[in-house]
Amino acid sequence: MKIGIDVMGGDFAPDSIIEGAVDSLQHLTHGDELVLIGDETPIHKKLKELNTSSSNVVIVHTSQFIGMGDIPAKAYSQKPDSSIAVGYKMLKENALDGFCSAGNTGAMLVGASYTLNVIPGVLRPALATIVPGLDNHNAVILDVGLNPECKPEVLCQYGILGSIFARYVLEAQNPTVKLLNIGEEETKGTSTIKAAYELMRDHPGLNFEGNIEANSLFRESMPDVIVCDGFVGNVILKQTEAFYHIYKTRNLKDSYFERLDFESIGGTPIVGINANVVIGHGISRRRAIMNMILQTWAVVHANLAQKIKEAI
Amino acid sequence: MKIGIDVMGGDFAPDSIIEGAVDSLQHLTHGDELVLIGDETPIHKKLKELNTSSSNVVIVHTSQFIGMGDIPAKAYSQKPDSSIAVGYKMLKENALDGFCSAGNTGAMLVGASYTLNVIPGVLRPALATIVPGLDNHNAVILDVGLNPECKPEVLCQYGILGSIFARYVLEAQNPTVKLLNIGEEETKGTSTIKAAYELMRDHPGLNFEGNIEANSLFRESMPDVIVCDGFVGNVILKQTEAFYHIYKTRNLKDSYFERLDFESIGGTPIVGINANVVIGHGISRRRAIMNMILQTWAVVHANLAQKIKEAI
Repeated sequence: MKIGIDVMGGDFAPDSIIEGAVDSLQHLTHGDELVLIGDETPIHKKLKELNTSSSNVVIVHTSQFIGMGDIPAKAYSQKPDSSIAVGYKMLKENALDGFCSAGNTGAMLVGASYTLNVIPGVLRPALATIVPGLDNHNAVILDVGLNPECKPEVLCQYGILGSIFARYVLEAQNPTVKLLNIGEEETKGTSTIKAAYELMRDHPGLNFEGNIEANSLFRESMPDVIVCDGFVGNVILKQTEAFYHIYKTRNLKDSYFERLDFESIGGTPIVGINANVVIGHGISRRRAIMNMILQTWAVVHANLAQKIKEAI
Repeated sequence: MKIGIDVMGGDFAPDSIIEGAVDSLQHLTHGDELVLIGDETPIHKKLKELNTSSSNVVIVHTSQFIGMGDIPAKAYSQKPDSSIAVGYKMLKENALDGFCSAGNTGAMLVGASYTLNVIPGVLRPALATIVPGLDNHNAVILDVGLNPECKPEVLCQYGILGSIFARYVLEAQNPTVKLLNIGEEETKGTSTIKAAYELMRDHPGLNFEGNIEANSLFRESMPDVIVCDGFVGNVILKQTEAFYHIYKTRNLKDSYFERLDFESIGGTPIVGINANVVIGHGISRRRAIMNMILQTWAVVHANLAQKIKEAI
């Protein structure tokens, strides 16, 4: 498997990206290859500093890069030799099996739709992330930020996309799906949520179990898939960051709370596009980058994009 | 001050309600009076059991009550001698200064609009609750569940209602207001949020400071007022419950996390109606009820409904 990494992306690029990539090597298997995409000079220097001469690491030099403050669409089209544009080009030409970046999220999304395209039949791609449960069961929640406003049909299809994610990435046998709402009764919520409930309830391909309220998140007995719009999902993701911050600030020690650290999760896959792409947090350092790469490995290993193509 | 308490409302009524009411007495001042509204037989029995013969406690007997499973509007109109209906009637006639209940939320809301009416000029009332900050500064967030879908004008007015709450209940001098969004930039979010941003930015009566993301909630440097729609606010409130549950389950001990316990906060005032009303959580026991009553005291003490009437 060949995983491309945007070495120029993120607040601590390129050093932390290269460090995280090197750390990930010990968790990968023999035939896996890391393709470091970016300016070759600092890459060579850092690899030497880390005493890494693995034959599993390949460098693809690029002369440009897209910064965190660049305007996404403009930068993507005006910088064809940037690490993000080159990564997407390689993905499209099957020179990579997966690609990940902690860089400019907008540019990553632009590349996903401009270069890779959405899988035919997918209404809107989504960002998916893991919700760790108290009972060690993980759920996937989507969307967590790509589409702040979702039509009922889109929410219903997120149930399908999430089920494929849960089946192949989380290895859930017959994934259960719930709709995030502000009450358990099907009459609760906005008109969009009520309409989505009906579509999901009547969809033969969904193992739909009704509504879930936010006080049941992160706890015992979560479903495998939790569906919400990108506004609500993003709020949930970020509120979790707030609580993790409080936990750290208060000097508490707990193995469950540690699982809420974004560094443990690493990245959020874009679900519904024609290849396997994972986006990391801009503030990612060494450990977060390593986990972003391992998350990409898991998504490629599950053959997620292909499984969605077959199912939709 | 006369505070009415629905003794029949909540999962642990009437016993826990009476216990919480008696506990609240020690925090109230000499002239305050608690009006226990409900079936007098268990009230007398419980007060005797608690050895309470305070002259500050008055009983108003009612022959009916609205259960947690009753259909709100139907129950409210068909049970005029229920504790909720009698409480609202007394409020309207100024026989009470404030009223609170941990009972059927729907019936409480029906009573608020049927019997008390919305303050003229208020577009939609809201439920407001406290967000405790790590630096001991409290914010108020609204709406947390009354209006799942809010027009931009309603969100803007929540900024005003919240500012009045912050000024008179939280004693903030010149309350700062932020809009909950999924990015700090004003171009982020849904079309509704973007429109609300513009209205709030241009409103001369608001000390508006832009967007706040959910990872800044509960932390240091919160604004005094946080505005969101009732769907998002309810998710935030309930996700907080989830984290408090995790904290308890993991046997952690921390004074900050204890402040997240709904029992410490007690209840959420309905803001924008013609009197001071507080709604408690259905699962409230003794301590939560005491704090619901003290929260009602604070809202009455601040003269919240009257201040809003004067401002709108």
